[in-house]
Amino acid sequence: MPEQRANLYDAIPAELPQEMFSDLLTAGSVRIERILSRGQTSPASGWYDQDEHEWVLVLEGAAELTYASGEVVRLERGDYLNIPAHRRHRVSWTDPDQTTLWLAVFYR
Amino acid sequence: MPEQRANLYDAIPAELPQEMFSDLLTAGSVRIERILSRGQTSPASGWYDQDEHEWVLVLEGAAELTYASGEVVRLERGDYLNIPAHRRHRVSWTDPDQTTLWLAVFYR
Repeated sequence: MPEQRANLYDAIPAELPQEMFSDLLTAGSVRIERILSRGQTSPASGWYDQDEHEWVLVLEGAAELTYASGEVVRLERGDYLNIPAHRRHRVSWTDPDQTTLWLAVFYR
Repeated sequence: MPEQRANLYDAIPAELPQEMFSDLLTAGSVRIERILSRGQTSPASGWYDQDEHEWVLVLEGAAELTYASGEVVRLERGDYLNIPAHRRHRVSWTDPDQTTLWLAVFYR
């Protein structure tokens, strides 16, 4: 039986008191996640310092990533970039006035 | 140096005499590709029969996948599904009146 179809835009809540993370695919070497943000920054303190590489795409909204090196990258609709494992970074801003929809592909 | 940002919607040609495939990320275990279609079906004959699994998402436009089992799945904006390796399938229809933008994650 072929896998079921699902939709990326399903189950987007009207209110987002906190960021929402949903796994779309979990396989041995890869994990695909939808992330919804609305004004949040993350992590709460310090930096993401991940064992996996992360390819991340913003499909709606706007956000800023800050690297531990000080570099800031703004991401808007369609922007993507690759964050190598252990490159310390944080989500330093997301638009408070609209939902930011991220697609993140974590891989080793 | 952090990786450069790029945009998924860049370099979309006005005319698409054939499907257009662009690698967005190539890593050991994963490859992320943008595919643009406008009325094409593929492959030209027979079936895709891939060594890699493929997670595929339609971001714009509309398409139909047909599996060798006979099952047909229509995909529109936001629809995604996972095609296991060696599950024979083909793109049996894409909308001739608009560009269909696919994001495909191939993985092992």
